[in-house]
Formats: sequence, C-alpha cells, structure tokens
Amino acid sequence: MQKLVIIRHGTSVWNIKNIFTGWIDIKLSKKGIKEAKKAGKLFNKYKFNFDITYTSFLKRAIHTAWYILCKLNLIWTPIIKTWKLNERHYGALQGKNKNEILLKYGEKQFIKWRRSYTTKPPLIKKIDKNYTENEFKYKNLISIPLGESLLDTYNRVIPYWKKIIYKNILKNKCILIVAHGNSLRALIKYIEQISDNNIIKHEIPTATPYIYEYNIPNIYYKNNYLINIKKKYYLK
Amino acid sequence: MQKLVIIRHGTSVWNIKNIFTGWIDIKLSKKGIKEAKKAGKLFNKYKFNFDITYTSFLKRAIHTAWYILCKLNLIWTPIIKTWKLNERHYGALQGKNKNEILLKYGEKQFIKWRRSYTTKPPLIKKIDKNYTENEFKYKNLISIPLGESLLDTYNRVIPYWKKIIYKNILKNKCILIVAHGNSLRALIKYIEQISDNNIIKHEIPTATPYIYEYNIPNIYYKNNYLINIKKKYYLK
Repeated sequence: MQKLVIIRHGTSVWNIKNIFTGWIDIKLSKKGIKEAKKAGKLFNKYKFNFDITYTSFLKRAIHTAWYILCKLNLIWTPIIKTWKLNERHYGALQGKNKNEILLKYGEKQFIKWRRSYTTKPPLIKKIDKNYTENEFKYKNLISIPLGESLLDTYNRVIPYWKKIIYKNILKNKCILIVAHGNSLRALIKYIEQISDNNIIKHEIPTATPYIYEYNIPNIYYKNNYLINIKKKYYLK
Repeated sequence: MQKLVIIRHGTSVWNIKNIFTGWIDIKLSKKGIKEAKKAGKLFNKYKFNFDITYTSFLKRAIHTAWYILCKLNLIWTPIIKTWKLNERHYGALQGKNKNEILLKYGEKQFIKWRRSYTTKPPLIKKIDKNYTENEFKYKNLISIPLGESLLDTYNRVIPYWKKIIYKNILKNKCILIVAHGNSLRALIKYIEQISDNNIIKHEIPTATPYIYEYNIPNIYYKNNYLINIKKKYYLK
C-alpha cells in the first residue's frame, strides 16, 4: 500500500495573535516548533520514510518540514519549495487582527471572506508594505496575487499537484506535503472530490499528520490525477 | 561580475574531539552553529543573494547551509543535496581518534593517509557499523566507497561540478557551495588548476566564506568547465 502524507505547519506567531497571515512570512511560535517536533516523533514511531517533501515559500511551512525531517534523519532527502503551495493570499486583510475585522465589517461579511469558496478578500494595494516585501521572492511570477478566493488558491495548487507531485505518485514515491490551511484544503478538495460547499467547512488542525493509503493508481485514476484511496486517517 | 561562493561547514562535534569523521553523520558543535550564523551575517552585510545552494548528504553541511540561508531570508531558494559533495570517505579510520592513530601507526603513515593525493585509507569492512548505518541513505549508489584517496574524492566531485553545478554558472546564477574540507579541496584544485602536490597543503578554515569573482565564461572557459577568475578572497 502506498502512502501520501499531508500536514499543516505548526502554530505560527500570528496564529496565536489571531491575525490574518496569508503570504506574510511569519515564523513558527514556540508551540508550533513543539508541534512540528511531535509530528516528527510520530512519523518516526510508525517508521515513515519519505522520499520527497513538498512545501511552500513560507518559513512556517519550511521550518515545520525541517523539524520533521530532522527527527526522521531524512534532511538529506529533496525538499521542493514552491509558491504554488503558499497559503491563500488574504489581500488587504493580511496583517489585520481577525477580531477587529469582525467588529468593523460584521459577521456576515467576515464569514464570507473566510469561508466562501469564491469570494476574494479586499485586494491589497501595490504600495502596501505587505505587498512589496515579497517582490524579490516572487520576482519570477508574472503577477503576484493581490488577494485570492479559495477557488483562486485551488487554481494554482491543483495544476502543481497534476504536473509535478503526481509524477512522483506514479513513481511510487512516499510523499510528504507540508503546507497551509487553505492550500491543503484545495488539495483535499481535489483528492477526495469534495464539493465547494463542503470543503469550506473542512478544518485542518496544525501539525497533525493526515495519511492517505492508496493502491498503485490504475488507468482511470491516472487519467484523472487521482489516487485510489483505501484508508485515510490522522496519525495520533 | 559573477560570484561563486564556497564554504566549509562549521566545526562539528568530532572536529573538536579530533576524530576522523568522513561519511559519519556528525552534527555541528555549538561553536559550529555560531560560526555558521556568523557567516550568514557576513553574507547579509555584503548583500549576497544566492540563487541556489549545493551541499552534501551530511547534516554538518546541510545545517550550515540552513543557518546561512536563515540569516539571508533565503530558505525558500533551492538547496540541492548530493553525496558527491560528501567529505572524503575515510575508510576504517572513520570514528578513530587522530592522536591514537598517529601513535599507533607513526607520523609517516599518518601524514600519508591524511595528506597524500593518491593514498587510500585502510578500507572499511562491510560489517562495520559505520558502513551499514549509511546503507539506506546511499541505497541508490551502485557501490558505497570503502575508503577514498583525495583523488577518489576529486573523481566524484568534479564530474558533479561539470555536469550539474556548471550549468547554473552558465545561467549566471549566484551559487553557494557548502561542503567539506576535502570535497572543497577537490573543487578548488580544479577551479584554480592547482597541482597534486600543492593542493594537499591547502587548508580550508571552517565556515569562512571564500569568494570567486569572475567574468561570464567565454568559449575557452566554457569548453573546460572553468571560470575566468578576476578576484578571490575570504569574506571577513
């Protein structure tokens, strides 16, 4: 049985402060570091041996991957970093406290921004410091997003899954994906074929390994870039 | 002017204990971590922006690369790990205290093992724990070395330089290579075209950035996988 493992980064400093983070490159909190190490220990206990790790351009995800692979003595394996697995870009909400946004705009608008599948946040302006700090890092992008709906995030995550990650699924590689609440939501939506309405309710806990066990894909699954899931569970 | 930067890992725990290390995967000492961070700060001060980092399969080099790239806010850039940049394999000497070996075999033999270009160390046996601990990590190698001369190390480092690293030299990438005393000695021998007799005297300090400034290679340099060095210096 093949295994694919996805995991959200550990709690970041802004997760604790309840601030919209998105593409802002906030580090793990002490709690987040502990969570990441604990995940590494769990993988070790169950003898996971990852061939390749995919993660985002953001340090809360990269450091989570490092802590896990350190515990597994696997830091010599490839760690592929891509902006395509970044968190959903939260536009002008980035850097804002969630409670303040809730009070200012009301619950209905707040929930729509957070949990609608197609609603974009208010777009960030190019003069905003949270926009420009990313320019060097994202210099090869044709355009840096100014704010994404979950659908927008899906539309960059899934092509990356199909074109890049899935190739290694077909090579029977054991893959670890360390990413973010919304980039993982997009991925789970595709892999489990979840509807637009249901995926927005799907909560992903921090640094908790989620395992898919699957058979080597047959022609139907291959043509659709899917995996033939036999079992799915949190490792605890 | 293009830049190529090479740096030896920070002081490891076994560097301090004066033990032959080779392919044994020993971590950085506290001193080594400090040195790596200091190198990162130096690169930051002089505004180095690496496009890609190459390092070995050994954690003392990988961690040195991580500490440097953390300081530069560049951990999202590619870090390519390869056994071809590993330290020289020290055969049956691995894990042995250098003073004890010196006393047991005498100075002449000791110097020959350490500083001859073509002399192999006594080969390691396949039943030695220092051999087998590496089996999973090196499972894709046709054969794991049992002990290398500096020439043997050269014969794996330089093909990697020519086939892999040099392609990125031609793409004008700013490259950082974080490796080991002897894999870097091999590389410097080639890049600076140093004789067999002279390279063995060449000492490389831990975690001290060594910079090559060069012009974009013309046809002569390209054909020989060389760089047209204009300036070389330690960053201090």
